[in-house]
Amino acid sequence: MSFLLDYFIHSIAFKTCVCIFFMLNILHVQSFEPQYSLETRYIDVPLDHFSAVAKPKYFKLRYLINAKYHVKGGPIFLYTGNEGDISIYGQNTGFMFDIAPVFNALVVFIEHRYYGQSLPFGNTSFSSPENLRYLTTTQALADFAYVVNELKKNFFENVISYDTYPFVAFGGSYGGMLAAWLRMKYPYLVLGAVSSSAPIFGFPGMASCELFYEKVTQVFEKYGREQCVKTIKLGWDVIVNLSKTKLGMDFISSSWKLCNRLKTNEDVEKLLNWLSNIYENLAMLNYHYPTDFFLPLPAYPVKVFCDKLTTSYFNDTKGLIEHFSNAIEIYTNYTGKKVCNNLNSTVEDYSERAWDYQSCTELVFPKCSTDADMFITKPWNYENYAAQCYKKFGVKALDPGWALMAYGGKNLKYYSNIIFSNGMMDPWSCFGVFTNRSATVWAFNITDAPHHVDLRHSDPADNNYILDARKFHIQAIKQWLNMV
Amino acid sequence: MSFLLDYFIHSIAFKTCVCIFFMLNILHVQSFEPQYSLETRYIDVPLDHFSAVAKPKYFKLRYLINAKYHVKGGPIFLYTGNEGDISIYGQNTGFMFDIAPVFNALVVFIEHRYYGQSLPFGNTSFSSPENLRYLTTTQALADFAYVVNELKKNFFENVISYDTYPFVAFGGSYGGMLAAWLRMKYPYLVLGAVSSSAPIFGFPGMASCELFYEKVTQVFEKYGREQCVKTIKLGWDVIVNLSKTKLGMDFISSSWKLCNRLKTNEDVEKLLNWLSNIYENLAMLNYHYPTDFFLPLPAYPVKVFCDKLTTSYFNDTKGLIEHFSNAIEIYTNYTGKKVCNNLNSTVEDYSERAWDYQSCTELVFPKCSTDADMFITKPWNYENYAAQCYKKFGVKALDPGWALMAYGGKNLKYYSNIIFSNGMMDPWSCFGVFTNRSATVWAFNITDAPHHVDLRHSDPADNNYILDARKFHIQAIKQWLNMV
Repeated sequence: MSFLLDYFIHSIAFKTCVCIFFMLNILHVQSFEPQYSLETRYIDVPLDHFSAVAKPKYFKLRYLINAKYHVKGGPIFLYTGNEGDISIYGQNTGFMFDIAPVFNALVVFIEHRYYGQSLPFGNTSFSSPENLRYLTTTQALADFAYVVNELKKNFFENVISYDTYPFVAFGGSYGGMLAAWLRMKYPYLVLGAVSSSAPIFGFPGMASCELFYEKVTQVFEKYGREQCVKTIKLGWDVIVNLSKTKLGMDFISSSWKLCNRLKTNEDVEKLLNWLSNIYENLAMLNYHYPTDFFLPLPAYPVKVFCDKLTTSYFNDTKGLIEHFSNAIEIYTNYTGKKVCNNLNSTVEDYSERAWDYQSCTELVFPKCSTDADMFITKPWNYENYAAQCYKKFGVKALDPGWALMAYGGKNLKYYSNIIFSNGMMDPWSCFGVFTNRSATVWAFNITDAPHHVDLRHSDPADNNYILDARKFHIQAIKQWLNMV
Repeated sequence: MSFLLDYFIHSIAFKTCVCIFFMLNILHVQSFEPQYSLETRYIDVPLDHFSAVAKPKYFKLRYLINAKYHVKGGPIFLYTGNEGDISIYGQNTGFMFDIAPVFNALVVFIEHRYYGQSLPFGNTSFSSPENLRYLTTTQALADFAYVVNELKKNFFENVISYDTYPFVAFGGSYGGMLAAWLRMKYPYLVLGAVSSSAPIFGFPGMASCELFYEKVTQVFEKYGREQCVKTIKLGWDVIVNLSKTKLGMDFISSSWKLCNRLKTNEDVEKLLNWLSNIYENLAMLNYHYPTDFFLPLPAYPVKVFCDKLTTSYFNDTKGLIEHFSNAIEIYTNYTGKKVCNNLNSTVEDYSERAWDYQSCTELVFPKCSTDADMFITKPWNYENYAAQCYKKFGVKALDPGWALMAYGGKNLKYYSNIIFSNGMMDPWSCFGVFTNRSATVWAFNITDAPHHVDLRHSDPADNNYILDARKFHIQAIKQWLNMV
């Protein structure tokens, strides 16, 4: 596979989620019915929280509120928004609503700057490095801190600005990193943080690059038939070989219903990358019941995919390609309404652009695939990655060691009141925290669980491991709030 | 005194120190003989630690090293530089050298960006808001973190970037704030912080504005004769009344050896401000032995000043003015070499400009004087203050509540391993931490002591309170380093 240019942007799974959501929500807008009622509010926050300027610029940050279970004086449960429209997270973090009545809590979701409606420069937010430079985790955390201060004044009486008020942070995935960091950097603002599936130990210098794809492979090995991983591995060679001729490219294009026919090597690379992303996302979203988080999927989508791929025999390469085509539709076209597949994962929607930028500057997760996993061989090289990013955004990534300096790497022993939970069958868990780091910085490893499922609503199909995790969270929050 | 414009820049004591140092070090350069040998080094640090840009700019940050007592593997004692040339602090923080042999410690002083030789834009560092915008505590702390990371690699073997290494932060005054904040924001980088005389509780919303001048008055009441404070109080009226005529202004100008004769109301305001600053600094630097910290002073300069002011009688206002003239010389001209006094506290030297900027943006300490103190009545008004700052630098101060949001105000209960020591006869102690804030965030109040005297070299005249403070520090550091 050496002809492949090493230009994959490796920060794919998160990104693809967001991107695919935007590709599909047009199709599935009908099926997306909000379960939770959330009132939309806005707050003017400083564009730059740290520097003094002649004319400080403020912009409208969106946040969502549900006060149904709130009793005056009760705690505020604060979701620290991810790389996407905050309303998606508002509808997919049912745990906060499930437990709000126990605590008389107000539920708040804060949108992350540069996502959803919280665009500092409106439509031009992504048009120049100068406009993008305020898209940093440091500024985003300061936004959350700023909102906490405002909520204090709105929901508590006679506020003394430096007293502790009962705020608890929640977040999943990147939002989980932010929840933990908020507690770490602003412990006087939130009493504790439930950080689910946060790949906080995944920065350069902290984790080997093979871990991620190995974990995806494990998920397919566990939930798919034995033959599935073998077939997927075989698939890469078949696709690459077939794509060497125009005839082969045409065959794949038509079999896989590609919106644009494969024509160049670059198109083929796009296809391979797109397929990788599908595998990653299937593993990440391998929930045990049907979901509509980013896109509609059946229960255990990895199993369903593998069943489709391997239940009947195929005689030749073209037969294999057809099998793939059927299997992929589980992911790309579960509702059966899609006309064609667009390989272009760089569609120009804002959220994807923002996450790409973050992946290119601060949030670099090293990923490489080797013979030990089911992916096409993909080396990891920081310099190449940074060069690609520079080409894309015209900025240089921060020092590879930046995240370690800014957030302490694995050295969390001086912090308190954080739960790092991880679904052990989530690919992102490979970058997670598995062991307790201090007397009150705990790890909770959830057997047989995908990406931040503990933060989702209670479901009859939840296994005991998930139930235990939620009990653990509730107990910890009670402790933080001095309720035990 | 209502004719006085309310335009004093209240952040005076620190600023004046620096400024007066620069005014006087030309005169006293001969008498300033370095006691401690410090090797000068430089490190390229990012101008902006947080944003990605097209061409990241680095600049040379200076740091000073003394390895005399260092044994390989021993701890690194790190002074987090203040608002001035770092060599001044290198020569006036003898405690670190005194205890280095006990710990086999390397002693390091890091210069604060925009001071001394660490100017990001050289001579143009202060010429525009754009060049000044990187002068923030957030960036300065990131500089220190950056240097810690570099020192790790230089002084320890087989460094794992996220492991803990034995760094201990020290700082006095603003440097003490930074030492504490470094431990608070980057606890994985420094095991603990000795923060002496740090006015960390002095931000708007945290402390009443009367405290500072009341504390200065207390120092004069304690160390000067009873008559001293009364005479100082009387002085304001006499000066103001006398300055209403040209004759009066001429008399003061010549009696007080002013370089430029008083001509306008503005000049008179400058004079009053200048006199205020002298009182503040006399109280702050009221050490029990002669010092050359910023400027040469006798032991107990407040006492010497008050003695001169009140030992003989005066018959009229002019006699009083002459008495003042003699007393002030203790401060302005202790070595007797000065020709005239320059009231212009805004001399264009870089350090003063940098501190003024910081006082105008993040480090706002509310100060007002009332009838309860010995100062001329001076109201405190944030808006007026901010307006004056805008006029001076063309930038708006950050939100008055910024420091509370950024550093937690008085809510330090989730932090660890910090000693906040305060000389109880230091004016700045009014903004200090007097009580323990967590199991290992301790206050140590030093009776009868001025500004961060515990960080100075051991002296035969040190009282037991000071000795106890140093013992406390040593014991705590041993604990942080797991030596007990």
